[in-house]
Amino acid sequence: MSSEFGINIRFSVFGQSHGRAIGVLIDGLPAGEPIDMEELAAFMERRRPGKSRLSTARNEADQPLILSGVREGRTCGSPLCAMIENADARSEDYGKLSDTPRPGHADYTAWAKWDGAADMRGGGHFSGRLTAPLCIAGGIAKQILSRRGIWVGAHLAEAAGQTDAPLPLRPSAALLAAVAGREVPVLDEGAGARMKEAILKAADEGDSVGGIVECAAIGLPAGLGEPMFGGVENRLAAALFGIPAVKGVEFGAGFAAARMRGSQDNDPFEVGEGGKIRTTSNNAGGILGGITTGMPLILRAAVKPTPSIFQPQRTVSLSRREVAELRIAGRHDPCIAHRAVPVIEAVTACVLLDLLHDKPPVLRPGAADDDT
Amino acid sequence: MSSEFGINIRFSVFGQSHGRAIGVLIDGLPAGEPIDMEELAAFMERRRPGKSRLSTARNEADQPLILSGVREGRTCGSPLCAMIENADARSEDYGKLSDTPRPGHADYTAWAKWDGAADMRGGGHFSGRLTAPLCIAGGIAKQILSRRGIWVGAHLAEAAGQTDAPLPLRPSAALLAAVAGREVPVLDEGAGARMKEAILKAADEGDSVGGIVECAAIGLPAGLGEPMFGGVENRLAAALFGIPAVKGVEFGAGFAAARMRGSQDNDPFEVGEGGKIRTTSNNAGGILGGITTGMPLILRAAVKPTPSIFQPQRTVSLSRREVAELRIAGRHDPCIAHRAVPVIEAVTACVLLDLLHDKPPVLRPGAADDDT
Amino acid sequence: MSSEFGINIRFSVFGQSHGRAIGVLIDGLPAGEPIDMEELAAFMERRRPGKSRLSTARNEADQPLILSGVREGRTCGSPLCAMIENADARSEDYGKLSDTPRPGHADYTAWAKWDGAADMRGGGHFSGRLTAPLCIAGGIAKQILSRRGIWVGAHLAEAAGQTDAPLPLRPSAALLAAVAGREVPVLDEGAGARMKEAILKAADEGDSVGGIVECAAIGLPAGLGEPMFGGVENRLAAALFGIPAVKGVEFGAGFAAARMRGSQDNDPFEVGEGGKIRTTSNNAGGILGGITTGMPLILRAAVKPTPSIFQPQRTVSLSRREVAELRIAGRHDPCIAHRAVPVIEAVTACVLLDLLHDKPPVLRPGAADDDT
Amino acid sequence: MSSEFGINIRFSVFGQSHGRAIGVLIDGLPAGEPIDMEELAAFMERRRPGKSRLSTARNEADQPLILSGVREGRTCGSPLCAMIENADARSEDYGKLSDTPRPGHADYTAWAKWDGAADMRGGGHFSGRLTAPLCIAGGIAKQILSRRGIWVGAHLAEAAGQTDAPLPLRPSAALLAAVAGREVPVLDEGAGARMKEAILKAADEGDSVGGIVECAAIGLPAGLGEPMFGGVENRLAAALFGIPAVKGVEFGAGFAAARMRGSQDNDPFEVGEGGKIRTTSNNAGGILGGITTGMPLILRAAVKPTPSIFQPQRTVSLSRREVAELRIAGRHDPCIAHRAVPVIEAVTACVLLDLLHDKPPVLRPGAADDDT
Repeated sequence: MSSEFGINIRFSVFGQSHGRAIGVLIDGLPAGEPIDMEELAAFMERRRPGKSRLSTARNEADQPLILSGVREGRTCGSPLCAMIENADARSEDYGKLSDTPRPGHADYTAWAKWDGAADMRGGGHFSGRLTAPLCIAGGIAKQILSRRGIWVGAHLAEAAGQTDAPLPLRPSAALLAAVAGREVPVLDEGAGARMKEAILKAADEGDSVGGIVECAAIGLPAGLGEPMFGGVENRLAAALFGIPAVKGVEFGAGFAAARMRGSQDNDPFEVGEGGKIRTTSNNAGGILGGITTGMPLILRAAVKPTPSIFQPQRTVSLSRREVAELRIAGRHDPCIAHRAVPVIEAVTACVLLDLLHDKPPVLRPGAADDDT
Repeated sequence: MSSEFGINIRFSVFGQSHGRAIGVLIDGLPAGEPIDMEELAAFMERRRPGKSRLSTARNEADQPLILSGVREGRTCGSPLCAMIENADARSEDYGKLSDTPRPGHADYTAWAKWDGAADMRGGGHFSGRLTAPLCIAGGIAKQILSRRGIWVGAHLAEAAGQTDAPLPLRPSAALLAAVAGREVPVLDEGAGARMKEAILKAADEGDSVGGIVECAAIGLPAGLGEPMFGGVENRLAAALFGIPAVKGVEFGAGFAAARMRGSQDNDPFEVGEGGKIRTTSNNAGGILGGITTGMPLILRAAVKPTPSIFQPQRTVSLSRREVAELRIAGRHDPCIAHRAVPVIEAVTACVLLDLLHDKPPVLRPGAADDDT
Repeated sequence: MSSEFGINIRFSVFGQSHGRAIGVLIDGLPAGEPIDMEELAAFMERRRPGKSRLSTARNEADQPLILSGVREGRTCGSPLCAMIENADARSEDYGKLSDTPRPGHADYTAWAKWDGAADMRGGGHFSGRLTAPLCIAGGIAKQILSRRGIWVGAHLAEAAGQTDAPLPLRPSAALLAAVAGREVPVLDEGAGARMKEAILKAADEGDSVGGIVECAAIGLPAGLGEPMFGGVENRLAAALFGIPAVKGVEFGAGFAAARMRGSQDNDPFEVGEGGKIRTTSNNAGGILGGITTGMPLILRAAVKPTPSIFQPQRTVSLSRREVAELRIAGRHDPCIAHRAVPVIEAVTACVLLDLLHDKPPVLRPGAADDDT
Repeated sequence: MSSEFGINIRFSVFGQSHGRAIGVLIDGLPAGEPIDMEELAAFMERRRPGKSRLSTARNEADQPLILSGVREGRTCGSPLCAMIENADARSEDYGKLSDTPRPGHADYTAWAKWDGAADMRGGGHFSGRLTAPLCIAGGIAKQILSRRGIWVGAHLAEAAGQTDAPLPLRPSAALLAAVAGREVPVLDEGAGARMKEAILKAADEGDSVGGIVECAAIGLPAGLGEPMFGGVENRLAAALFGIPAVKGVEFGAGFAAARMRGSQDNDPFEVGEGGKIRTTSNNAGGILGGITTGMPLILRAAVKPTPSIFQPQRTVSLSRREVAELRIAGRHDPCIAHRAVPVIEAVTACVLLDLLHDKPPVLRPGAADDDT
């Protein structure tokens, strides 16, 4: 198994960058859930390249076609399969894999693993293009979650050395929606402008930059997640590292917590409106012992700089076993961190929907009597 | 499911801090592997508390008793169960869970999840004591891996604001073994002394500190791991977040990569001895596209400060729904990051052993003809 | 999860009978395996209806379209998705589910489970039509297995009260191929003619019949399968009961063994050609303790009579909660057992390919040194 | 993985027949459930050998010791581990595996799989003794189910050619309890006497017999189970084939359905008390499309005759690759089918408890608002 995640709901991604189609199969969605195709298209638009100089000029239509699992606009309980045809799938053969693997890409590891049998055209199954089906799944998950008062949103916390404003202790759904609408998805539009400038400067120099995406989920009940390896952090991290270019994941204060003292890091409890227990800070990121506290879930993912750059790079010839110089042509994103924002929201939403379907920790009387 | 990880080999941890026993069940170990009980005891000794002022005074004997799966000192192909009796298991009832949850602990989330049914004495199933069975599993995994030329080691890269020296590009097994033998497991013993001083200072102030553990695995072949969600990073992160107090995991340059340019982060390829392909830097941490490159695997985990501190803290009374002051008695570690070093090695070793048992990516002719 | 099986290789089926498309996603196939599309089409033809009065007149083209996972005719290591468009998908709404559930069908249970949200047109996801994607997967699995000397074949051991000749102790690949080429897939063509006659007689009376399919796999090595719940029988049964209408599964002598004495049922060992150990009878069906013996694997599946019959039947109105009479129109198979023959071969082949990818029980030195 | 089953609740069995201990680890039990140890002991007593000439004279005390997961008599949400020490574990080495595998046993396949590393003393991990931990798990599951109105019971439907009376259409809990209390667990005590006589006759001849166990579960709601491979039949069969000696599993009319016409096999619907929909016959065994109908769940398992018999048998010498005669000494059951009755109840109860924890098929509003 490789391209699947989820326990109660399974999300399986398929396709190669230059194959006939890419898509996602979702097994286990609750039945009777409306899917708003316009809202889904709007969500996918946020990830789509070709909109500005910040991303690759490749223009994808990316209209998802739902093959199964939906009946009259609602999920019907059987697996949902959605695909996107690769309009630009080219049939000519330009080599299964170049003889000169690109530094920072999966070219070399795919060759080592599959003895050259892999389809690595355009990055193959490792391509960032495969995040489009993740956004189909995540867009659907977000719609289902929002009907239960759970909202997932993210911002570009840092890019090219420029830092966005911090999230408030309790972000609102409106704030998360406002961020989503911006060209650079940030809280502070001034920071967004500085990021854009820095990204374009790197692009002008034939280089690329990385960034950090911070994601929040609000409205979660306390008590989600299982102890130890079935925790919320475990399951989110396991999925998030499946997004190309993610090299680090932290929750709440994360690595910064390692530099705090206990007296700083511990979040004091208080009693909020309606007797609801909450904390006055959120260094735990809404998770203690792997289980949700009911405070906003906060995570951050490190996105490395796009490995495709226009400067000459050193690589090796796999066949001749000698050093070679590589110059990459084509059109590439100078930064993918801003486009990763909706992808990280998507994956987070999928995992949270899965968590929401975990077995109840206490089996209440009558569970079996209820004829559903 | 909660307390299990692994795909081909399943590691299941059981026990509560003050229950009758804690232990681990390992299903799927290869058969015929010798287990050196002395070497295992020496490994577990590294995690054991009570050895100095750096850790809790609670003295655990922690002799693992193997109940099944071993025959005449070798694994026999059936599940291996090992347990440690809790010598200090107390029968008196001091409340299933205190009415005043400790900040930074799982007390509140366990209460929210299980309606008060959880056994939270001494932290229950969430206690750091449950890392002892992880060390049994990891110690066994390390022995099996080392017979195949794979070595896993770790150092305390940072604690209480003090930083250890960096790992070399290609750490040797001897270097990793030397670190393991030190009271504070560091590369630079001067840094270790400064860490110890800073930890004791925090302890004197009734406070605690966190740290960062860096782990390396050498000798791995290229090509381990599956694309997307079955990658090495996904599976390691999913397991590592099961260690209490871990709040962040990164691979290679990790979050620092997010601040690099592509021209810095990309690791150039070169041809090493015997025509072996390798890279001249290792920002990828030995993993590209989720698959091993054959370079050392490098990961870092952020360990938050011990939440049990001696300063008064603000919490709430769950029954009265009002703010309360909490003073924690007993004996607690002022830092657990140094004791987490062998635990992170252990979990890493378990995941790598599991990965080594992944199905072959190419089914070679004769696979079926071989009568084993 | 629902529509998936397999451990190392995952087979996921999607689609509803009257939805846009049906298909299968296979994650984990070995890379570099050629797929012969003509051979696949020939295999699927065996299951196809509309060829004679023995099956429904519905004529499906059922050309599978491979969306991903194949490159220049060979598997490429990433998930293989194949779909079949439903040419006859009708858009008009004739009710999500009839108010009068058909006896013997999943109509009532789907209604009870999904509160009426299910798409049950033409049987929905429960339709026998969903066995077409299983045949895509199985046809591919059979090709890969045959290149390793493993052949899977089946015959209609019994239908409408007529019994086929028994399989020989060691069926040859040629014998299995000959059976596959017959209109009624039997060893004894006289028995086939009697079955056909009996099926058509039932059809003339507006009724239907069931049958028993016996499947053999030859060329398997000894030692496949895990003890207890990971055994060959467990994994085959878990998958075979996913085929609509299968109500019983047995291995070797199966239920007949329950009526034998130990002295009859025990298969004596002998030494065959080349010192190969084998047994002189095969009541075990090639499996002892869940693990293959190297003798032919033999299983039988009971296929119940098609529940759609033309005689009036008693059902209830779900809305009015009163008894109602049901008359089913349309065109239905008087027997599906003969069409189930390739489906049972297909599912068996998928499970065996999965088993062949189980982790090696003994980790031989050098496993890690081999750079693939 | 091998010795585990279950999705939401995982049951893992460990131990070898002559090792230090055998046991079970259950991960995912609902919290707060009382465990009545006396009731558990009474259930385990039903499986215990040594009570009459019908079973082996080996006398096991088999007192389960609960190591974790229970607090003050109730489950506490963390994994429950229970073990039974092997009082008769012998340390002397009498060969890892005899050179002459016993016909009908796993001796040969264990040797083929693990290159002789397996611990096969007394059957090792394949021994019927491993059904004792299954009864611990099943006894606990039965207690939890019965508090929700679900009862699981079984009878010996056939043994040594003697047939018990059939189960009524709607068996009562009282009837199932009465059967459980009998020496031979049958409905018709006359049939039980005939079975006993026939078993003892076979024993006198140094031979053994098999039987068929029929199991019923009453009180199940309609709608349990997932379509296709996640169905109730799939999951039950996958677990039941893990019981040593089970060679066939069928549901409802099972193989007999294959000989019926559709007009006989289809169960007509009717409206029962309180408007509850039910069927007037139960050839479906309470399952349509893999999903429960609300009628009693009925399954049958074929138990082969005990392979250990006292007559001389033909086997081979593994080392010399030549035919050898085998005479088995020791004390063995002439029949295990009657002792398999509680084991099949146990496994069925475990699977049903797991199914009861499946995700809800429809995610009702407010699922997320409920702070538990």
